[in-house]
Amino acid sequence: MTGFATSVIGCKCEAAIECDVPAAETPDGRPGVSVLLFATDTANLQTRLIERIGQTVMTCPTTACFDGLPDATERLSVGRALRVFGDGFQASKVIGGRRYWRLPVMDGEFLVQEDFGRATAIGGGNFLVLGETAEGALEAAEAAVRAMANMRGVILPFPGGIVRSGSKVGSKRYKKLVATTNDAFAPTIRPLTTSELPPDVNVVYEVVLDGLDFTTIATAMRAGITAACRPGIRAITAGNYGGKLGPHHFYLRRILAGELAP
Amino acid sequence: MTGFATSVIGCKCEAAIECDVPAAETPDGRPGVSVLLFATDTANLQTRLIERIGQTVMTCPTTACFDGLPDATERLSVGRALRVFGDGFQASKVIGGRRYWRLPVMDGEFLVQEDFGRATAIGGGNFLVLGETAEGALEAAEAAVRAMANMRGVILPFPGGIVRSGSKVGSKRYKKLVATTNDAFAPTIRPLTTSELPPDVNVVYEVVLDGLDFTTIATAMRAGITAACRPGIRAITAGNYGGKLGPHHFYLRRILAGELAP
Amino acid sequence: MTGFATSVIGCKCEAAIECDVPAAETPDGRPGVSVLLFATDTANLQTRLIERIGQTVMTCPTTACFDGLPDATERLSVGRALRVFGDGFQASKVIGGRRYWRLPVMDGEFLVQEDFGRATAIGGGNFLVLGETAEGALEAAEAAVRAMANMRGVILPFPGGIVRSGSKVGSKRYKKLVATTNDAFAPTIRPLTTSELPPDVNVVYEVVLDGLDFTTIATAMRAGITAACRPGIRAITAGNYGGKLGPHHFYLRRILAGELAP
Amino acid sequence: MTGFATSVIGCKCEAAIECDVPAAETPDGRPGVSVLLFATDTANLQTRLIERIGQTVMTCPTTACFDGLPDATERLSVGRALRVFGDGFQASKVIGGRRYWRLPVMDGEFLVQEDFGRATAIGGGNFLVLGETAEGALEAAEAAVRAMANMRGVILPFPGGIVRSGSKVGSKRYKKLVATTNDAFAPTIRPLTTSELPPDVNVVYEVVLDGLDFTTIATAMRAGITAACRPGIRAITAGNYGGKLGPHHFYLRRILAGELAP
Repeated sequence: MTGFATSVIGCKCEAAIECDVPAAETPDGRPGVSVLLFATDTANLQTRLIERIGQTVMTCPTTACFDGLPDATERLSVGRALRVFGDGFQASKVIGGRRYWRLPVMDGEFLVQEDFGRATAIGGGNFLVLGETAEGALEAAEAAVRAMANMRGVILPFPGGIVRSGSKVGSKRYKKLVATTNDAFAPTIRPLTTSELPPDVNVVYEVVLDGLDFTTIATAMRAGITAACRPGIRAITAGNYGGKLGPHHFYLRRILAGELAP
Repeated sequence: MTGFATSVIGCKCEAAIECDVPAAETPDGRPGVSVLLFATDTANLQTRLIERIGQTVMTCPTTACFDGLPDATERLSVGRALRVFGDGFQASKVIGGRRYWRLPVMDGEFLVQEDFGRATAIGGGNFLVLGETAEGALEAAEAAVRAMANMRGVILPFPGGIVRSGSKVGSKRYKKLVATTNDAFAPTIRPLTTSELPPDVNVVYEVVLDGLDFTTIATAMRAGITAACRPGIRAITAGNYGGKLGPHHFYLRRILAGELAP
Repeated sequence: MTGFATSVIGCKCEAAIECDVPAAETPDGRPGVSVLLFATDTANLQTRLIERIGQTVMTCPTTACFDGLPDATERLSVGRALRVFGDGFQASKVIGGRRYWRLPVMDGEFLVQEDFGRATAIGGGNFLVLGETAEGALEAAEAAVRAMANMRGVILPFPGGIVRSGSKVGSKRYKKLVATTNDAFAPTIRPLTTSELPPDVNVVYEVVLDGLDFTTIATAMRAGITAACRPGIRAITAGNYGGKLGPHHFYLRRILAGELAP
Repeated sequence: MTGFATSVIGCKCEAAIECDVPAAETPDGRPGVSVLLFATDTANLQTRLIERIGQTVMTCPTTACFDGLPDATERLSVGRALRVFGDGFQASKVIGGRRYWRLPVMDGEFLVQEDFGRATAIGGGNFLVLGETAEGALEAAEAAVRAMANMRGVILPFPGGIVRSGSKVGSKRYKKLVATTNDAFAPTIRPLTTSELPPDVNVVYEVVLDGLDFTTIATAMRAGITAACRPGIRAITAGNYGGKLGPHHFYLRRILAGELAP
């Protein structure tokens, strides 16, 4: 459900597990996981949901799939598209004002909700961990990721939560490219470009966050940045992109001081 | 690299980890994993390789990406498409007759081979585990998957290696659909269709295999089927599809008797 | 609960997870794991149960601990010894003829059964995987272990299920030692001793099994040995110990032929 | 190596993985893990090392075992006791002033250092996470544990790093007991004892740390406590034990303010 979903540009969506959901909180009383999926427009989001639920959740032993945003007023129809896999043997039922589809499969039935909630959210939150050594920088970034894991309302779409191929908007060389390597933070080409790396920094890792709202992302960033403050880390900063990439600005110093509202 | 790659129809490719590769056997002397990726035509295969390596391997801390089929005569150009991410700071080098690209990234360089080998292989090998109980059938299928894990030349493209939404070719109800639920093996609709389920069977799981050649798939099937022979399993069979789905036929009795050649 | 429990000689007991237990089959309707613990006498077994449950299960968030052998007529008192940790705040209750103790702890109560069943069982089942290469032999042994995982009635007490320091009874050099290296199967001293290694074998791994009865162990061995039959494995045999180590003899050829009774 | 090692009282030692060690930093250039083992006296520490290395490291495929405290002046002889397993086929060699033993085993040789360093360290660092709900308290404690993972010089000896059966020194009821349940923090007996639980707190988890020195433990506590500050956590405090349990005092407010020296 969340594989090959690191970047809306290259994968059409970004997705990851938000948190485990204990049996007491799921609709069918079984242990669950909550997934958040981000896309750049609603039609695309719907297509991604249908194909990913159909290919990876419906196929998987014992699963059912429920909406996790019941209060969202905008609804995307998903179960209706999947129902035809039942080849006429499917059935639907309305419970508590929501429609559910039952598709016969080889281990019983796949139960899937008719529609799923959509909300306006925030993608591309990030911070950069600048370290002296490869080992130290990676450990610090991993500690950051672990400190943010299982938080409600936020996901880290990259595998392991960490990116090493940070990018800048556009290109100096290739006019058509929308994103190329963040050469200002690439240590091996320090002498060849206008580097922003401090003298003792040899490795940089980026942590990317998508979240449901500003405060959730800021709270996660505060926990992650604090955990990344380990020996050998020289600086923690963020991709700025000239302040032009989206309406939200996360000021790291304010966040660390506890200002978690926009 | 291998996420959302369960079915060539719905995901454009099928992919999974083939095996771990010990440090002594990798080109750069570091521990590795080998991935096999299957697609229905060469152009599609190349596109999938480029986008998946670019989005999930290049982005990941410390990785490099090497061809695992050096003897394959057909070569797909991959590194050339990825190199532009380096924004002109990339470099290439030919070592031992093969070209490698070095792309500057934030933790150093991403090293990726220029071209990757392609070979004609076999998709859609499968067997069905028919059990009395949900727990027993799942455990048996899981034992089968574990017995086949890490084998050279074969992958199980579905998450956990197991499929519960087995399908038949076409549809009885919807003329345009290429695949719908395998109603003959769906226990909840037994009275509504021409069921092929034996009396005591209540749950069926399918294991799907893709492999480089017939013998590899047959060897894996023998290990998997033997491991699935646990208490409560009533039968093990395979999706036949009228013998029309591809040129290869895997006869389970012959395979269990040790006939592993085509 | 199962750590540092590889050998009854060195660790006083052998223990491992037998299988996962689905929520529907546990006394409190929550997902569980079943552990088997083997010792050489009843008093020792009781002491091991008390200290391991007290140090590792009672201490662990959310756990409860129930008897898994309710039909065993011999009972070991465990809860009575643990109850004093409750410092007088504990309580007990008899349900269905069994006594349970409730000990107040910081996340609520630790619920533990008063007594646990004991049965006469079999330790030290084993087979040896003889391979050409280190990688191949380890992969084959791992495949064997995976094929036997989660089977009812049998455990593999060593970490990962595999032993590389196989031993013989007694010693050629040190009179007091009860066990020393199995020099006949140690490849680096082949010229220095009476080796039993075939010419092309350079690495040997042993799989050790403890089980509740003969048939369970034989069934597991059949699945494990079949899965270990991978390329590069030259022979599979077993530690014989002159037929003097215990009353049970497992003949590998009979087991592979399906003779699973004693 | 680290199983059944939660408490020096009940298990004779406390042990856990300190951190992964990359191949570039290990004596034999292979990936490793570093383990710290704590005991209350030197003779006991030596016995624990010998039996745990002998039963769990020597037995495990491919392992070698090296000293991680080469600068410690106090040395414990370990390899000498293990060497007799080689039954006279063992050999030793001095490299760089250190003696190593080579024991022939079935996958080659087990290489183990003759002596291991000992240092005076600190056990029993701890903090308590007081939460409103079971789920929230456990998640917060788990986030704390993850934020501290892989730190040099510190271990969390309990499984998963979290304790739910916190204890007080001595007993109110049983005169001979050295430790019984921390009734002041046990929510189910709040009305029966002098509770220290704030009104809305229903679940408490303890995180226990052992470390090589004060600053290491304080640094880990700062990261852990920050990560535990999640919604639903009402207080974070520590077991005080009347200030009588050992010479070191960790003041949480000072630690959070960055005072990490004693």
